[in-house]
Amino acid sequence: MSFVDVIAKKRDGRALSREDIEGFVNGVTAAEIPEYQAAALLMAIVIRGMSDQETAWLTDAMLRSGDRVDLSDLPGVKVGKHSTGGVGDKVSIVLAPLAAACGVVVPKMSGRGLGHTGGTLDKLEAIPGYRTDLTIDEFKQVLRRVGASIVGPTSALAPADKRLYALRDVTATVASIPLIAASVMSKKLAEGGDGLVLDVKCGDGAFMKSEPEARELARTLVAIGTQAGLRTEALITTMDAPLGRAIGNAVEIVECLETLKGRGPDDLVALSTALAARMLVLAGRAGEAEADRVVQRALASGAALDKMRALIEAHGGDSRVVDDYGRLPQAARRCAIRAAHDGYIERLRAELVGRASMALGAGRRRMNDAIDRGAGVLVMKKPGEAVHAGETVLELLYNDARELAEASAFAHEAIHVSAAPPVLPPLIRGRVA
Amino acid sequence: MSFVDVIAKKRDGRALSREDIEGFVNGVTAAEIPEYQAAALLMAIVIRGMSDQETAWLTDAMLRSGDRVDLSDLPGVKVGKHSTGGVGDKVSIVLAPLAAACGVVVPKMSGRGLGHTGGTLDKLEAIPGYRTDLTIDEFKQVLRRVGASIVGPTSALAPADKRLYALRDVTATVASIPLIAASVMSKKLAEGGDGLVLDVKCGDGAFMKSEPEARELARTLVAIGTQAGLRTEALITTMDAPLGRAIGNAVEIVECLETLKGRGPDDLVALSTALAARMLVLAGRAGEAEADRVVQRALASGAALDKMRALIEAHGGDSRVVDDYGRLPQAARRCAIRAAHDGYIERLRAELVGRASMALGAGRRRMNDAIDRGAGVLVMKKPGEAVHAGETVLELLYNDARELAEASAFAHEAIHVSAAPPVLPPLIRGRVA
Repeated sequence: MSFVDVIAKKRDGRALSREDIEGFVNGVTAAEIPEYQAAALLMAIVIRGMSDQETAWLTDAMLRSGDRVDLSDLPGVKVGKHSTGGVGDKVSIVLAPLAAACGVVVPKMSGRGLGHTGGTLDKLEAIPGYRTDLTIDEFKQVLRRVGASIVGPTSALAPADKRLYALRDVTATVASIPLIAASVMSKKLAEGGDGLVLDVKCGDGAFMKSEPEARELARTLVAIGTQAGLRTEALITTMDAPLGRAIGNAVEIVECLETLKGRGPDDLVALSTALAARMLVLAGRAGEAEADRVVQRALASGAALDKMRALIEAHGGDSRVVDDYGRLPQAARRCAIRAAHDGYIERLRAELVGRASMALGAGRRRMNDAIDRGAGVLVMKKPGEAVHAGETVLELLYNDARELAEASAFAHEAIHVSAAPPVLPPLIRGRVA
Repeated sequence: MSFVDVIAKKRDGRALSREDIEGFVNGVTAAEIPEYQAAALLMAIVIRGMSDQETAWLTDAMLRSGDRVDLSDLPGVKVGKHSTGGVGDKVSIVLAPLAAACGVVVPKMSGRGLGHTGGTLDKLEAIPGYRTDLTIDEFKQVLRRVGASIVGPTSALAPADKRLYALRDVTATVASIPLIAASVMSKKLAEGGDGLVLDVKCGDGAFMKSEPEARELARTLVAIGTQAGLRTEALITTMDAPLGRAIGNAVEIVECLETLKGRGPDDLVALSTALAARMLVLAGRAGEAEADRVVQRALASGAALDKMRALIEAHGGDSRVVDDYGRLPQAARRCAIRAAHDGYIERLRAELVGRASMALGAGRRRMNDAIDRGAGVLVMKKPGEAVHAGETVLELLYNDARELAEASAFAHEAIHVSAAPPVLPPLIRGRVA
């Protein structure tokens, strides 16, 4: 069957065979299928959809397009974590040392920020000396010694995903649950863990705007993981406003350290501990009833903070930042964004806060942009909190004022003040297993 | 609005604006929009469709991507003809001199054959010396002198269509009524006539397999033409079996000459005279009631044949072929395809007969293939005719036997014999105006 016939099949709403899908993925990886043909098939997939079976075959073909990390010689149960992405989402940096302090091995491959969302690697690199580019051998050494490691993915994992994602980004074919699920799970399966906890975000600042969409994505992700032999669970969580009170890079590291010291903002603490508890259960380190207590103890005892120190050192970073935030990149200037009138913060639109942070230099528009790790946004008033006219709601931190006006406009637009206290959705909306 | 947003709009089933569509067509013409983005939008259009208004804008943008022939300084009413393509469809070659003999000016730009369908230009070039590559000035001189001219399109007409068609061909995005309609009508409008008669084929051997699809295409084509100020009509005609009894190039010229001499096969005569009559009506050369009679007279009197002679000469061709078919390319060898048992020809599948002809060398697989103008297929028994076991149904004409086995297989597969006489659909199924 020629590739044009494969495209026509999906165009007409018919299911692709395993051979069709493997031919597609292998052809894209080897650059044997022209991009215009791949783009046509991707659009047909976005509109016509894919069955769970097709999605599983796609994931498997993408997984097998590259290497697979072998962690089987490491002792312990290895449980990964993945978030579908939000603003101020620094959970991995809290979670990895926290779960490791409870005996779970946490091999974590993270990404860089793009557009309005930040990236875990960029945040960690705000710590002087922290290396995200470990080799697989170094990664495994850190896991053996510390129990957690957060690194960048090697280019040898799921190379098909890299090519497909670059093409989807410029052809309006990102918005597809099967394509998103195959992209996420091919990488996660390549990372070689035994279990995986997913944080599927839903809301204004997330890719999935509605809860039904988020549930469908979670269901698809869990189905693929489970079918591939990975113990997989997902929490559906709200992403309307930024998570925590810091958006940027160095400021998010500070917030993570504060959280590990027991002084974190409520939402970040709640989500990090909930996800960590699920990792303990998946790893068999705690039963359903006791997992949360074990996690809370690791946080309160300082064991999680100690793990964080060890994690930073093992990655070549300066662990003195844990006690001296002045060693992190700073912003020389600040600009207060104030409430126009009395009331309650009804909404603090995550995407717009993320755009403000990007405009200040903390994020990148394009993959090769440089970023300013001292810049960012602080949230002084969270949704639900009362505010008086003239009170500061957001604080913009910056070194370069060139795009301050744009950042300020985004920040003002992000704030909605209402007369009555708003009814806010719960942070954790449900679990899919 | 970025082009990715335009793609997303159509992906989500929303209507494109005139600006969106112009940006697309101009970007494709100037090669400023990458092919992968154009392919993604084309697929979204194929699946989501386009309104009549969007299709009209697309046609107009494609029309304005290039030159437009100006025939306004020629006397008389200029009426073009276009067929959506079939096997053995030689109607234009009969129709042009026939309508011209009745006083209609017939400016006809035709195409080359590809795949299982032949091309009018290839057939005419079987006549020694016949030039299809006239300049616009030469084309107009022939129209002025003879009243009809059949040439190839200049590359300056609707260049956007050329680029888009090449991309659609390799991305499974050909099958779309709006895209087909815009492609046909942008070229026809660029040709500068006053009226247009369309032959929209439907059936096994046509692009539109069902009558409702063919009617929808006809309706769309007529709507675009009418809106653009072109008097446009369409006949819906059956294309299950080849038209006439000859498929190829020189053999089709012979059949056209025989038809102009009053000895043509019933179906070819009926379709050519019906379309010619509509051209007379559109041109105001005859009323509804008398048009058919005027056409029949031009055929019976030899006036149409005289026009054919003049047409050939005006194009530099050897008009002695009209009386001496031996001056046309010949096939040195013949192979009879016989009926396996007694009965009636129930079906003679046009597409398979076309493939047989292509395999014999009369057509091309790819645009740059050379063709053998002497090769082809003769139909000895048409659908509905009785046949005895061992009687010849098709005769394969060839010079090169390399693909004879393949041609023979297609030919055998094309023939369906039934015990009872089949019920055949009418040749002309309706008219859309």
